[in-house]
Amino acid sequence: MTDTPFTLTLPFPKVIPSKVEAHIKRPLSSLRGMFADEEAYERMLGQEDTLVYEVFEIKRNEEVGELALGVSVVHPGVVGAEFFMTKGHFHSVLETAEVYYCLQGEGFMVMETPEGDTSVAALRPGTVLYVPPRWAHRSVCTSRQGDLVTLFVYPGNAGHDYGTIEKQGFRKLVIDGGNGIAFVDNPRWKKEAGS
Amino acid sequence: MTDTPFTLTLPFPKVIPSKVEAHIKRPLSSLRGMFADEEAYERMLGQEDTLVYEVFEIKRNEEVGELALGVSVVHPGVVGAEFFMTKGHFHSVLETAEVYYCLQGEGFMVMETPEGDTSVAALRPGTVLYVPPRWAHRSVCTSRQGDLVTLFVYPGNAGHDYGTIEKQGFRKLVIDGGNGIAFVDNPRWKKEAGS
Repeated sequence: MTDTPFTLTLPFPKVIPSKVEAHIKRPLSSLRGMFADEEAYERMLGQEDTLVYEVFEIKRNEEVGELALGVSVVHPGVVGAEFFMTKGHFHSVLETAEVYYCLQGEGFMVMETPEGDTSVAALRPGTVLYVPPRWAHRSVCTSRQGDLVTLFVYPGNAGHDYGTIEKQGFRKLVIDGGNGIAFVDNPRWKKEAGS
Repeated sequence: MTDTPFTLTLPFPKVIPSKVEAHIKRPLSSLRGMFADEEAYERMLGQEDTLVYEVFEIKRNEEVGELALGVSVVHPGVVGAEFFMTKGHFHSVLETAEVYYCLQGEGFMVMETPEGDTSVAALRPGTVLYVPPRWAHRSVCTSRQGDLVTLFVYPGNAGHDYGTIEKQGFRKLVIDGGNGIAFVDNPRWKKEAGS
C-alpha cells in the first residue's frame, strides 16, 4: 500500500507534536561520562535523575528517499558550568545531511567532522540550520528559563552513530563562563582508536 | 573541501530567508493552462501579469544524502473561483518524500499519486506536513489577505517533474465555493498518455 500524507501540529506554547510514534526521554543518568565536571554530575544525580532532553519522533522506513522527522526538546539546566545538551551523534551513513528549524528557546548546535572541523551555530526561534553530510551534531540549551525546541528532518536511511561521540566526546564544550556563554576546548576529548 | 554548516533566519513578518541562492518568481503568465477558468485567466492577464508565487531556494548538490530546502510564498488571489496556487510537481525520482512546515497564512496542499490516490491537507502556522514518496504536491493559498508561507525540505536527488502536471493537471481543484472553500473534481483532468 502507498503511504498517505499526514500533518501534525506543534501547538504553542508546549510545542509537543500532535502525532508521535516514539517519545525518547533522556534523564541525567543516561548521559554519564558526557559532562566535563564529573563531580558535579554525580552530586546532581545523587539528588535527582533530572530529565535533560526529550525527542518526539515520527518514524519512517529507513531507506533512501524517505525523510525522518521529529521535535527535540532540551530542558534548561547546567552540570557544573556546562549547559544541558543532547548526547549528539554522527549519522551511521556519514554522507547524510540534516535540517533543523528552531521553534522556541535559545541555544547552540555544536558540530564537528571526523577530520576535526568544528562549528557552533546559534539557534533562536525562526533560525533554519543546515547540517551538511559528515557533521556530528549536538543541541545545547543556553537559556536558564526555557526549553530549546527544534524541528528536525533527515534522510530516512541516515541512522544514528552515538558510539563515536560516547567514546571521544565533542571537541568543543558550551559553558556558562560567568560573564556570558563560552565555547571552550574539551579537555577530555580524545580521538577514538580506529575512527 | 567539506561543506560547512550554515544558518538562515526567517524574519517575521516578511519571512524571506536571510540566505537565498535562487529566487524564482512565477507570474500569472507562467501558469497558462493551469487554471480551470480560461476566460477569467485571459481577462486577468490582460490587465496585469500578477505575481502568483515565489520560491526562495538554498541549493545543494543533487545527490542522495543531501537535503534541499527553501521557502515558498503563495500570494493571495483567485482566477475565477480558483485560488492562487503553485504549478505543483512530482519528484523526478518518484520515490522521494518532502516535509513542509507552515510559517504563515492559510491554505492547502493538494496531492495525488500516479495511481489516482488524492489527498488535501490544511496548512496553518505550525502545521508540519509529511508528503510521502510518489505524491505530487501543489500549495494553494486560500486567504484573501495574506501569503501562504512554507518552509520545505526534500532529498537532494529528488528533482522536479513539472511536465506531467502541466499536461494532465491535478485531479482536485480548490475553489471559493461562495459559502466556503470547496474541493472539486477537475473537469479537465486527463491521464497523460504513457504516464
